[in-house]
Amino acid sequence: MELESRVRQAVARLRQGQLEGGASPQEFWVPVAVSARHIHLSQEDVERLFGAGQTLHPIRELLPGQYACEETVTLVGPRGTFAGVRVLGPARGQTQVEISSSDGFVLGLHPPVRLSGNVEGTPGVAVVGPSGAIRLADGVIAAKRHIHITPDEAAAWSLVDGQNVHVEVVGGERPLTLGQVVVRVHQTYRLELHLDTDEANAAGLKTGDLGRVPEAKPAGGG
Amino acid sequence: MELESRVRQAVARLRQGQLEGGASPQEFWVPVAVSARHIHLSQEDVERLFGAGQTLHPIRELLPGQYACEETVTLVGPRGTFAGVRVLGPARGQTQVEISSSDGFVLGLHPPVRLSGNVEGTPGVAVVGPSGAIRLADGVIAAKRHIHITPDEAAAWSLVDGQNVHVEVVGGERPLTLGQVVVRVHQTYRLELHLDTDEANAAGLKTGDLGRVPEAKPAGGG
Repeated sequence: MELESRVRQAVARLRQGQLEGGASPQEFWVPVAVSARHIHLSQEDVERLFGAGQTLHPIRELLPGQYACEETVTLVGPRGTFAGVRVLGPARGQTQVEISSSDGFVLGLHPPVRLSGNVEGTPGVAVVGPSGAIRLADGVIAAKRHIHITPDEAAAWSLVDGQNVHVEVVGGERPLTLGQVVVRVHQTYRLELHLDTDEANAAGLKTGDLGRVPEAKPAGGG
Repeated sequence: MELESRVRQAVARLRQGQLEGGASPQEFWVPVAVSARHIHLSQEDVERLFGAGQTLHPIRELLPGQYACEETVTLVGPRGTFAGVRVLGPARGQTQVEISSSDGFVLGLHPPVRLSGNVEGTPGVAVVGPSGAIRLADGVIAAKRHIHITPDEAAAWSLVDGQNVHVEVVGGERPLTLGQVVVRVHQTYRLELHLDTDEANAAGLKTGDLGRVPEAKPAGGG
């Protein structure tokens, strides 16, 4: 949701501003965005599932240039199914399913932890739409946790693309520190920590909560 | 499984022994036991679900004095259901359902994080067995993570009942440090870290893996 996302950004900046004025000017906070199970489709698979000549219908923006669509599918694994799985647009070169490990137990398959786009050797799943069904040979992953950040913000906090950082989550009843959180820098990104539902639930986090990155340090007063 | 559990204990002790002989004699490691969704039943509810005069049938020991039973039930929430949910014995004073937050999303209810037995104000759920069905008014929790340890082991590592410690999980692709892990000391306990499936999946852990407790220090060479 565009508005919701703007509010999250504002809260994170406000918090950083407040902290900069207080006792801990070094602290970098990132708003959490929890990703529920979803699917990215190639245009070819959009047409197989929703009909020849069909395209996706955006209903709300999630990231700049990425949106939730009206369309949903059913995932059918060897052990169970999930109906109403949201399609994310726009269509991509390659169909990819992102689920949590918990989802994998329900479906009866075990997705490896991967960055988006890295699907070699991953399990497949059957995908059913209103106009057709496909059997993916691969493409099911558990998304590796990562932070989206713009080049300017990354530079201001001495972070670089590909860097692994920690994120500390405190204050709730399930405090924890996540390791191996990859920093992904791109001009179109909004500052967000992307977690799957297992990670969010283990930490008692919901979208809009904040985590602290201890490695992030202001670069020359930035 | 009694044998599996013994193997885990042996591995943890071996690892501690090895470390004591090496560079880090201060390190305390605890084997992980992952708890999938399950239910504890009162004898009254056993009879409601499985028939008058029926009792539970143990199939394998999980902890000393606690066992998985042949019996399973179906949980029915406002949004979804889980069939084949294992009953744990023996029968207790009070029926209690332990699920993960991810399970809660499937069922359509939101269990608070609680220690076992503390169910005041928790949501209920419908429970269906082969001979009857009940609608619990409350009793659905997400189990608060905790370590089981004997009084001797706790004393040897300077841990006390009720203490909150951290557990570090390193080495995998989802390293993290869990905070607010409660130490529970009892003569009948075997050394184990009890996590739910969200926590285990977020850390990439399975039963038998090991976590390190930085607060645990040998007491006088113990």
